[in-house]
Amino acid sequence: MKCSVYIATSVDGFIAKKDGSVDWLHSAGNPEADMGNQADMGFADFMASVDCMVMGRKCMEMISSMNLTPEQWPYGDTRIIVLSNTLKEAPDNVKGKVEMYSGDLNDLIAKLGNDGFKHAYIDGGTTIQAFINLGLIAEMTITRAPVLLGEGIALFGKINRDIKLEQAQATAFANDFIQEKFVVNYR
Amino acid sequence: MKCSVYIATSVDGFIAKKDGSVDWLHSAGNPEADMGNQADMGFADFMASVDCMVMGRKCMEMISSMNLTPEQWPYGDTRIIVLSNTLKEAPDNVKGKVEMYSGDLNDLIAKLGNDGFKHAYIDGGTTIQAFINLGLIAEMTITRAPVLLGEGIALFGKINRDIKLEQAQATAFANDFIQEKFVVNYR
Repeated sequence: MKCSVYIATSVDGFIAKKDGSVDWLHSAGNPEADMGNQADMGFADFMASVDCMVMGRKCMEMISSMNLTPEQWPYGDTRIIVLSNTLKEAPDNVKGKVEMYSGDLNDLIAKLGNDGFKHAYIDGGTTIQAFINLGLIAEMTITRAPVLLGEGIALFGKINRDIKLEQAQATAFANDFIQEKFVVNYR
Repeated sequence: MKCSVYIATSVDGFIAKKDGSVDWLHSAGNPEADMGNQADMGFADFMASVDCMVMGRKCMEMISSMNLTPEQWPYGDTRIIVLSNTLKEAPDNVKGKVEMYSGDLNDLIAKLGNDGFKHAYIDGGTTIQAFINLGLIAEMTITRAPVLLGEGIALFGKINRDIKLEQAQATAFANDFIQEKFVVNYR
């Protein structure tokens, strides 16, 4: 079971402002730029490569707060597991689209693997940090929005030891976002 | 007078470990990689584009601690101003190579401009943050070493307001370092 990260941050490494807002992300860069066939910066290709998602509660609540129409829902019918130790039921507008989970993450990944899933999209800052520390993340795609925020919720947090990244790829898009891709080497 | 940043950070944005060490930087990535004509990741070209440097005291002390031979000195005869409110004299092994300065940064840049200097290399975390907050940085080249450190001395700190970056360029080198270049837009 492969686990991958695909997430946007500011150039100084924040995934959201302190209050959780991501307005800055949607207004960052040059929205007028001609993106050619890169308008989604690889998101559809990434989604096509995964068959399940694991996200944190806050990440799910942010998505829920957007009140997406079925046409706007970006995850197709990909199975979505939401991690929470406190919330037992998903908000009404995402009910049926997500399953709640509370428990050991290695067990969850093992179970998803036993169920035939091959590649999980891991989303949300706290969740990504937990998966990194468990040695579970195989690949990371980080899309840097061209803005400095100064403070906010950081993508990365403390880790048990230095973690080596490999097979670097980089793309600068016409809208001035830069996408970095790395394979994680836990050896 | 144009001011530019050229600095290496970990993928999670640290320029040094908490104790100031940068050993991780020298061992990061794949040192065996064939870098072709990119072995210095653009450093010589950048140095050729600047005619003076402004660095913080800690940055200078780190360089001093390396006890570089004249052959190893990476800055040629570029004029170097070291900022410190406490240190009046440079360490012996860099004396003659650097000048100490204590005072207003806008005044310093204006004075360098009046002296005919055109392009300053701004170095050191605290110094870079001060210049960013004064709206003095025109361009930033950030070279991401392929490693997560989890904690350390961050390149960026709090800023007065969001700062927009433009004209993104990205290069992934054979050693798995990724270099990002941005023009800063303070408007």
